[in-house]
Amino acid sequence: MCPPPTQNGTNGTNGHAKPRAAAAAPYQTVQDFLSNTNNFKIIESTLREGEQFANAYFDTATKIKIATALSDFGVEYIELTSPAASPQSMEDLKAICGLGLKAKILTHVRCNMEDARLAIECGVDGVDVVIGTSSFLREHSHGKDMAYIQKSAIEVINYIKSKGIEVRFSSEDSFRSDLVDLLSLYKAVDAIGVNRVGVADTVGCATPRQVFDLVRTLRGVVSCDIETHFHNDTGCAIANAHAALEAGATHIDTSVLGIGERNGITPLGGLLARMIVGSHDYVTSRYKLAKLKEIEDMVAEAVEINVPFNNPITGFCAFTHKAGIHAKAILNEPSTYEIINPADFGMSRYIHFASRLTGWNAIKSRVEQLGLTMTDDQVKTLTSKIKQMADIRPLAIDDTDSIIRSFHLDLQA
Amino acid sequence: MCPPPTQNGTNGTNGHAKPRAAAAAPYQTVQDFLSNTNNFKIIESTLREGEQFANAYFDTATKIKIATALSDFGVEYIELTSPAASPQSMEDLKAICGLGLKAKILTHVRCNMEDARLAIECGVDGVDVVIGTSSFLREHSHGKDMAYIQKSAIEVINYIKSKGIEVRFSSEDSFRSDLVDLLSLYKAVDAIGVNRVGVADTVGCATPRQVFDLVRTLRGVVSCDIETHFHNDTGCAIANAHAALEAGATHIDTSVLGIGERNGITPLGGLLARMIVGSHDYVTSRYKLAKLKEIEDMVAEAVEINVPFNNPITGFCAFTHKAGIHAKAILNEPSTYEIINPADFGMSRYIHFASRLTGWNAIKSRVEQLGLTMTDDQVKTLTSKIKQMADIRPLAIDDTDSIIRSFHLDLQA
Repeated sequence: MCPPPTQNGTNGTNGHAKPRAAAAAPYQTVQDFLSNTNNFKIIESTLREGEQFANAYFDTATKIKIATALSDFGVEYIELTSPAASPQSMEDLKAICGLGLKAKILTHVRCNMEDARLAIECGVDGVDVVIGTSSFLREHSHGKDMAYIQKSAIEVINYIKSKGIEVRFSSEDSFRSDLVDLLSLYKAVDAIGVNRVGVADTVGCATPRQVFDLVRTLRGVVSCDIETHFHNDTGCAIANAHAALEAGATHIDTSVLGIGERNGITPLGGLLARMIVGSHDYVTSRYKLAKLKEIEDMVAEAVEINVPFNNPITGFCAFTHKAGIHAKAILNEPSTYEIINPADFGMSRYIHFASRLTGWNAIKSRVEQLGLTMTDDQVKTLTSKIKQMADIRPLAIDDTDSIIRSFHLDLQA
Repeated sequence: MCPPPTQNGTNGTNGHAKPRAAAAAPYQTVQDFLSNTNNFKIIESTLREGEQFANAYFDTATKIKIATALSDFGVEYIELTSPAASPQSMEDLKAICGLGLKAKILTHVRCNMEDARLAIECGVDGVDVVIGTSSFLREHSHGKDMAYIQKSAIEVINYIKSKGIEVRFSSEDSFRSDLVDLLSLYKAVDAIGVNRVGVADTVGCATPRQVFDLVRTLRGVVSCDIETHFHNDTGCAIANAHAALEAGATHIDTSVLGIGERNGITPLGGLLARMIVGSHDYVTSRYKLAKLKEIEDMVAEAVEINVPFNNPITGFCAFTHKAGIHAKAILNEPSTYEIINPADFGMSRYIHFASRLTGWNAIKSRVEQLGLTMTDDQVKTLTSKIKQMADIRPLAIDDTDSIIRSFHLDLQA
């Protein structure tokens, strides 16, 4: 939910108005009684979904480093690749279970007894069981019908529960599965005490309204927790996670920078950017946000990618303001053009003044930063000089500073 | 809307099932009578919003190249920086208006008579007028009250209309503006015949449900077109654009790769990735999708950024499949794990088989690509060899091919 127009002045920290979460206009309040936007848990899947990213190859040391950093950051769960994937995957899972991290360790397995046994042998806190339920997958992947799926689900869940281990049961490609089939299956596994059911937009097709509708319907059918998993093929993975929480989902799957199959899933940082706007205190109390950039850089290095220029929070320009009209207002009051306080993530803002879109307020601020004194009229004359120069060629900060200083010298003369 | 489970078999083109837009389950059909998901127009703002991107400096030749490419691509409108920004901005606007492009040329000006006069002098097809209406901006930016805003809006709109030019009136920071103020203002400008009103999430705070609610409410208040503009600070710019169209908006602002203030706005490619899923025929009939990558590369080069690894459609891994279970199904039927047909955008898919997550179906397909013959059992043995190797170190395709060939040689011996 959007923060309200300033009511209580600023809180003194970096100029951002408080409280952010209260609401002022009708469309700004969605206070649904089932909403979990202020009460959700993160299942961090960089070491499972993220390992399916084209460029990902995590050796044991890297896995341990990432898992440790994520646990320290505050994510509630860390999900790893199935021990059935390869012998090394199994060794790595055992190693991470043995670290005694604060986060619970999960692994993600196919819905069969061998995979479940292998998972439990490794010492996990929980097992995430998955099977494809769409007719696409039933026809072209595993070839099983719904009766078979339900039977094996129950067998596997009962087995895992009998070992005292947390268990989630998820469909795959949930948004292209038959609704009645899906609800029947979830109802059956809820009845035998599954801890969570999972809804997965495996192909990244769902829209926020579809997510809201399905999760809200499911919320009325099961009493267990609801985990959700959103791919980003159509750019909705963050919005869908938010819609799921509004509808009563309890757990969101993320990966660092969103890495995963194809173009990935809900990114950890992007989710927190979304959630902090409406749930500032919840998010800041649970997660060490100032560590986000370090974790993103660690993963980016491990999979040899650059952090996208437009990444939420940590993209190089996430808090850069350029147009004169924006710079002016930001200098007066940051929350005019910033919905997130960069300081919450240990980041800082930057007013870009070396361009033809600059305004005299931005230049005035730079003049003051340089310790120079000018009247407003002088700054306005200086500003048109800078805009003229910027019309001719790109200006670096140094260039602009030189123009400012030379103009100031001329004034003295 | 998600495509349905296969009903009519495949259509023969790249293995994707048809029809994509029909619906199969209750939460897959949102057939609202006001929805414009099958009837929207794009206002491409790379040369206005995009010029506010930290790294953007477009010289005249680059602006002409980008405008020409966008018009050829099929966008309905191209928006340029205000001629009031600098003398060169004015010259560039005149130059582009003189090109005779198919797309209509707009410029984006402050709500005052001087800016409006300047715009019209340049020969634009339409003027996009904007003023901040949130109490944040009224207090910290321009300092004007709502009565003053409405008075100047009416004066400026009447003037532009008197010149026979299309005019849009937009609030800025609409989602933190008072709803009653906002609706009164829009109603007043609609009454004097404005062509479009604009809703802008200037700070990137809005959620899809808030967007849906505000646009749906507005749709009942004005009879003119509704343009929407979404910043991406909280990762919802694509989802919000979709929600706006569902609620009856008619025009979406985009920029190439989403470049703009801070981390930008709804990206052109990302919007089309979202829209093609539910509105395949509309999108493919209007836009030359195969040109998308070329335009993105052109803009990325001009502003010196890399296309994000996870960019929808054109990111390097957007159609790469890695996990064995995915690869197997994709080889059977692409729509199992692909909601977008890469061929629609002139792209192709890639099955990643050189990893420990590979499955024997992916290896079998590679064996066949290499022109070798093996039984399924032999491929399965080969697959475990490759998974073992991939546990030890990252495998390039060449490495995997060598393992396959050497295994095949051993079989012959």
